[in-house]
Amino acid sequence: MVPAMSLLEDLRADLGPAHVLTGEEAAPYATDWTKAYRGAPLAVARPASTEGVSAVLRRAHAAGTPVVPVAGNTGLAGGTMAEGAVMLSLARMGRIREVRPAARVAVVEAGVVLARLHEAAEAEGLVFPLTFGAKGSAMIGGVLSTNAGGSNVLRYGGLRGMCLGVEAVMADGRVLDLMGAVHKDNTGYALKDLLIGAEGTLGIITAATLKLFPKPRAYATATVAAPSVKGALTLLHRLQDATGGAVECFEYMPRHYVEQHIAHMDGAEPFEAPHEVNLLVEVGATAPRDAEPDEGGAVPVQETLAATLAAMIERGEVLDAVVASSETQRRAMWARREAAGELMLHVGRLLNLDVALPLDRVEDFLERAEEGRRRIDPGAKLSIVSHLGDGNVHWTVCPTDPARDVPLTEMVEDAVAALGGSFSAEHGIGLAKRGTMARRKDPVALDAMRAIKAALDPKGILNPGKVLPD
Amino acid sequence: MVPAMSLLEDLRADLGPAHVLTGEEAAPYATDWTKAYRGAPLAVARPASTEGVSAVLRRAHAAGTPVVPVAGNTGLAGGTMAEGAVMLSLARMGRIREVRPAARVAVVEAGVVLARLHEAAEAEGLVFPLTFGAKGSAMIGGVLSTNAGGSNVLRYGGLRGMCLGVEAVMADGRVLDLMGAVHKDNTGYALKDLLIGAEGTLGIITAATLKLFPKPRAYATATVAAPSVKGALTLLHRLQDATGGAVECFEYMPRHYVEQHIAHMDGAEPFEAPHEVNLLVEVGATAPRDAEPDEGGAVPVQETLAATLAAMIERGEVLDAVVASSETQRRAMWARREAAGELMLHVGRLLNLDVALPLDRVEDFLERAEEGRRRIDPGAKLSIVSHLGDGNVHWTVCPTDPARDVPLTEMVEDAVAALGGSFSAEHGIGLAKRGTMARRKDPVALDAMRAIKAALDPKGILNPGKVLPD
Repeated sequence: MVPAMSLLEDLRADLGPAHVLTGEEAAPYATDWTKAYRGAPLAVARPASTEGVSAVLRRAHAAGTPVVPVAGNTGLAGGTMAEGAVMLSLARMGRIREVRPAARVAVVEAGVVLARLHEAAEAEGLVFPLTFGAKGSAMIGGVLSTNAGGSNVLRYGGLRGMCLGVEAVMADGRVLDLMGAVHKDNTGYALKDLLIGAEGTLGIITAATLKLFPKPRAYATATVAAPSVKGALTLLHRLQDATGGAVECFEYMPRHYVEQHIAHMDGAEPFEAPHEVNLLVEVGATAPRDAEPDEGGAVPVQETLAATLAAMIERGEVLDAVVASSETQRRAMWARREAAGELMLHVGRLLNLDVALPLDRVEDFLERAEEGRRRIDPGAKLSIVSHLGDGNVHWTVCPTDPARDVPLTEMVEDAVAALGGSFSAEHGIGLAKRGTMARRKDPVALDAMRAIKAALDPKGILNPGKVLPD
Repeated sequence: MVPAMSLLEDLRADLGPAHVLTGEEAAPYATDWTKAYRGAPLAVARPASTEGVSAVLRRAHAAGTPVVPVAGNTGLAGGTMAEGAVMLSLARMGRIREVRPAARVAVVEAGVVLARLHEAAEAEGLVFPLTFGAKGSAMIGGVLSTNAGGSNVLRYGGLRGMCLGVEAVMADGRVLDLMGAVHKDNTGYALKDLLIGAEGTLGIITAATLKLFPKPRAYATATVAAPSVKGALTLLHRLQDATGGAVECFEYMPRHYVEQHIAHMDGAEPFEAPHEVNLLVEVGATAPRDAEPDEGGAVPVQETLAATLAAMIERGEVLDAVVASSETQRRAMWARREAAGELMLHVGRLLNLDVALPLDRVEDFLERAEEGRRRIDPGAKLSIVSHLGDGNVHWTVCPTDPARDVPLTEMVEDAVAALGGSFSAEHGIGLAKRGTMARRKDPVALDAMRAIKAALDPKGILNPGKVLPD
C-alpha cells in the first residue's frame, strides 16, 4: 500500500468514509471560484469538530503530506490551490457556539458563513460589522485567515481588533487554545494576530471569539459628486467631524465605473450631469438622539448629512449630491457599488491590483498610476473602485495584451512603494502576489516571516507555497 | 582585553564616549522605578538614531552579549532588569518625525514621551487617545513593547489597532521597516503585532506610525453609585446605547478604595451615604450636535448622561449620582481615580494582580476572589480598582504575611482561568509573571512562543529571561 493510500485509510477511520472525498466527489474542490487556479487534491477531508481537524493534521504531519484548508472558497489570490495535498474543508464546523450579549461577544466555528453570524448578532440587537460582497458564502475561518476587509474597516477597524480569541490546530495536530473573551490580554506574544491573515500557513483556525457592536438605529446614505479625490477626503473629514466619527462607508466610483455600470448592468446616471468623482457615503446613527425623527419627521443623522453636503455645495466643495429618502433609494445606491464583482465579468480580462495608500496620498497615487497606464498601455480600459475612506483602491485594468500585465503591475507597485502604501490591502498574497512579495516586501521582514514559518511548521505541510516566496 | 571591554570600546567608537555609560553614570539604570528589581548592567548605551540602535545590536550580537531595552522605565513587571547586559536606552530617540493631519497619523520615535505626543496631536485638533497614569514619563517604545492599556481601550480599542506601522531593529542589528501609514495591509504575517507587546524580546521598536482621532469637543463626567457590579454593567450598556458608544472611561472603585482615599490622601466622600460600588464615568462628545450648548446653556452630552442616570435612579438601578458641572468638579472626580498609584504606597506591602475578565464574568470573579481571600488570609486588606468598562481588574491585596502571597495569587489565577479571563491584562509578563506563564498559559501557545523566540533571536540576546518561562 502506498503511503498516500494508508493516509486516506486512516482519515476514513477517523472521520468516517463519507467525509473523506476523492475522485469525482473531490473534483469540485480542485478549482477556486475565480477559475484562475486549478489543483489536484489528493483528497478532501471534512471534519466536523476541532478534534477531527486535529486528527487530520496529526495524520498528515506523520505522513509528511501537505494540508490546504478551505472554508467558503471566496478568496481572490489562489490561497486554496491544492496540488497533491489533503484539502481540509471546514464547512462542517458550522456551529455558533454561543452569543453572549452582556459580554458583547459571539463564539463561532470556522465554517459559519459570515451572513449567518450577521443574523445571529442582529437577533440580539447587535452587529458583527465586518462585511463584503461575498458575505453569503465566505466562512469565518477564511475571513480570519485572509484578514478580510471590506467597506466598514473605516468605522470599526480591522479584523484583528474585532477578534478577541482564536482556537487553532497547529501543524502537528496539537490544539492551540487562545479563546479568551477579554479586551486586554498581555500574556506573551500575539499568536492570535499572527494566525489571522496567515492564510493557513502557520496553523488552521477552527473557532474564534468575535466582538459584537451596537446596531445603528438609522442610516443616512447619499451619492455625492466631488470635484476631486482630494476634495472627497475633505468631505470625509468634514462628515467625521459633524457626526463624531460615524461614517460607515465612503466608497469611490470614478466616471468610467458609472459608465460601465450603465452600459453592462442597466445602471442609472447618479446625477443630471456626469461627474468624475462619484461617492457612496453612509453614516450610521447608533445614538437614539441621532436616529429618532423629530416632530417634522426628519431623522437627525440624515439632517446632519444633508446640511454638511448643502454647506459644501454652497462653497463649491461638493458638485452635486442625492440623499436617499427611502430604503429603496438606499438599496439602489448600494446596488451600484455592489455591482463591482459582477461588472468585472463584463469588462474583459482583468488585472486586479488591490492596494492601500495613506489617505493623504490616494490622489497622488491615482494620478501616477493613470500617467503610467497612458505610457504603458494607453488602450487599456480601467475599472477602478475604492474603499476611499480607508485608502484601499482596487486598481483594476483590462490590458490590451497579456504582455502588458507585468509592466502595469510593476508601475502600480512602484507608485505604491514611493507613496508609502501597501501592495496588498485586503485580498492577501496566496499564490497571486508571491512574486510581488519577493520584489517588494522588506527583505528583513521576509526573513523574519520565513523563520517563523520554519519554527511553527518545520515540515512545511501547512498550505505550502502560499504567502512566502521561495 | 576581555571581550566585554572590547565591546564597550566599539560602542564608544560608534556612539561617542558620552553615550556609553558605566559605573556611577550607569547606576541609576540598575533599578526600576518600583524598586522591586535591581540588576547590574554592563553599560548603558544611548543611541540617538535607528542607525545607532542597529550598531549597538550588531556589536552585541557579534559579542553574544545580552541587550535590554529601556524607554521611560515606568513598567510594573521588571521588564528592564539588566544583569550583565548592555542596557539600550531609547531616551535620545525623541523626535516626532511628522504629524500628518490629513492622513490622521503621527510618526514618532521610541523615546517620545506619551504626553508629548498627546500635545502634538492636540495642536492639530486631534488626539492620540491611549493614556494612563505614567503618561508624563512613559515613552512610545515602552508603551508599544508592553502593549500598554489604560482607561480608554473601551472606546478606542487596543494599541495594536492604533499603531499602523513600526520600525524595529532585529537581534542581529538589521532594521525591519514596516512603517506604512495604511489602514489595510495584508502583505504576510503580522510582524508589527508580534513586536507590540513582546517586551523587547523579539526586536527593539525604534519608531512607529500611530493613528490620531478626532478630539472630543465636550465631556460629560459623573461619579455614580451602582447597586452591584452587574448593575454597573447595565449602566455601561445603557450609556453606550444612549450615546452611540461614546463612553470614554468606566472605572470602578469599591468602598474600601474610597475609604483609603479619604484616610490617606485627604479624599472626600463622593455621596452623602457610603456606597459599595462607586464608578467614574465619562462620555466624550465628538459631534458638534452633542457638544454645543443649547439656548439654555445645557450641553447635550451632559443632558444625555444626566437623563440616563435619572431614569435609572427612578427605577432603583442606580443608587446615587453626581454629574460634574464644571471642569474643576471633573478634575476632582478624576483625582480620586488617579490617586490609585500613590495610594498604594500608603496601604502596605502589596500584591498587585492585574487581570482581565469577560464583561459578563467580572462580578463572578470578584465574588470568588473575595471568598478566596477570606479563606486564605482573612486579615488581608484589599485595594482594588478596575477599568470595569473593558473588564480589567487590578486586584490588589496586602497579605498579612508574605507566605500568603503564593496561595492568594494561585487562588486568583484559578478564578481567572475558570471564568475565561487573562492573568495579565495590561502590565505584561516581564520577570514578575513568568511563573504564572509556566503554570497557566496554554502549553501549545508556550511552545509556539519559544519557537518564535528561537527563530528571531537564535543567540537569545534580546532581553533574555523575560516573558517566556525557562
